[in-house]
Amino acid sequence: MPRAQVPNVVIRRLPLYLQTLERIAETGQQVVSSTELGNQIGVSSAQIRKDLSYFGEFGRQGLGYDVENLRNQLKRILQLDQVWHILLVGAGALGHALANYRAFEEQNFAIVAVLDNDEAKIGQPIGDLTVQPMTSMERAVRDNHVEIGILAVPARAAQSVADNLIATGIRSILCYAPITLSVPEHVHVAYIDPVTTLQTMTYYL
Amino acid sequence: MPRAQVPNVVIRRLPLYLQTLERIAETGQQVVSSTELGNQIGVSSAQIRKDLSYFGEFGRQGLGYDVENLRNQLKRILQLDQVWHILLVGAGALGHALANYRAFEEQNFAIVAVLDNDEAKIGQPIGDLTVQPMTSMERAVRDNHVEIGILAVPARAAQSVADNLIATGIRSILCYAPITLSVPEHVHVAYIDPVTTLQTMTYYL
Repeated sequence: MPRAQVPNVVIRRLPLYLQTLERIAETGQQVVSSTELGNQIGVSSAQIRKDLSYFGEFGRQGLGYDVENLRNQLKRILQLDQVWHILLVGAGALGHALANYRAFEEQNFAIVAVLDNDEAKIGQPIGDLTVQPMTSMERAVRDNHVEIGILAVPARAAQSVADNLIATGIRSILCYAPITLSVPEHVHVAYIDPVTTLQTMTYYL
Repeated sequence: MPRAQVPNVVIRRLPLYLQTLERIAETGQQVVSSTELGNQIGVSSAQIRKDLSYFGEFGRQGLGYDVENLRNQLKRILQLDQVWHILLVGAGALGHALANYRAFEEQNFAIVAVLDNDEAKIGQPIGDLTVQPMTSMERAVRDNHVEIGILAVPARAAQSVADNLIATGIRSILCYAPITLSVPEHVHVAYIDPVTTLQTMTYYL
């Protein structure tokens, strides 16, 4: 099936399947049923089978899934069998937390440059890198083959930084600012905003 | 309709409606159509009308929604017309970013205590608070009427901290650790994990 035709909600579940399979693989288990996989994630086995059916046949009726094979297939589908280069914009408290977050590297995501517009931060160390000025954006993207931008800037700065990132050719942005960005259709934006998440949680309290 | 019967995906869209209405209200605009609201969020007007229909009638055919009224109704539905007290566990780089994040307070979420098990961090200032030892958890929850816990601890510590939080009576946990927690049915967990989000984004690259 063409990539664009798989529902977004299905794509959002695939990393959870992958992460769960990786934990299962660590225990040495080689085969897993859709029921067992579903129990560990909190979705039904029917949902898992339906989600995976968008991409082909991965298990045999009654035999379950080969853990290693399904894991490799999911990595291939999500294009996680390569290293992705990330430009981080914003070297505040959040930027520092992200630059030092070990799980990125472990999962093939490499932050290759960090930018900020604050003179006091430029030139300072951050993770294993040095904070560069915003004027270095185009060169940083080109020289490091950056494919993904992370915005860890205040909401008021986010749109103009996003515009600049897109002008360099970046097509994927992870936005931590509490704002909805206006972007061209070919650009994909994902948002992480704890306030929005908390506002969902209070419904259930 | 009973709260439990509204689909989760609907609940997850309500904060976006609310935030967009708040931006619209700031401009002084008093009435908004479902089409205009949908355009600003990136969902169809039919979706908005369907989502809202779970909770009653909020607009009149052809007249659009009263911005202030719909905003107040959404706040009521999401129970955001009160201040929620949060206990933050973990005073590392992420914990500091969260403790200093102004948007929490602006949106009625108050971090009232921060805990860590690291002797070097205990007693140190964080945001407007002081880091307390893990042994203070029960008292901190009780004395501050805490309803929500945020986990900003490493994955290996997350389950045991969650168990302790739940033992104090907390029913809502926002988990930043890259792990799926095992919790009783009455506890609601939401996850924020940039790796999972990035793993979804690479599909579209």
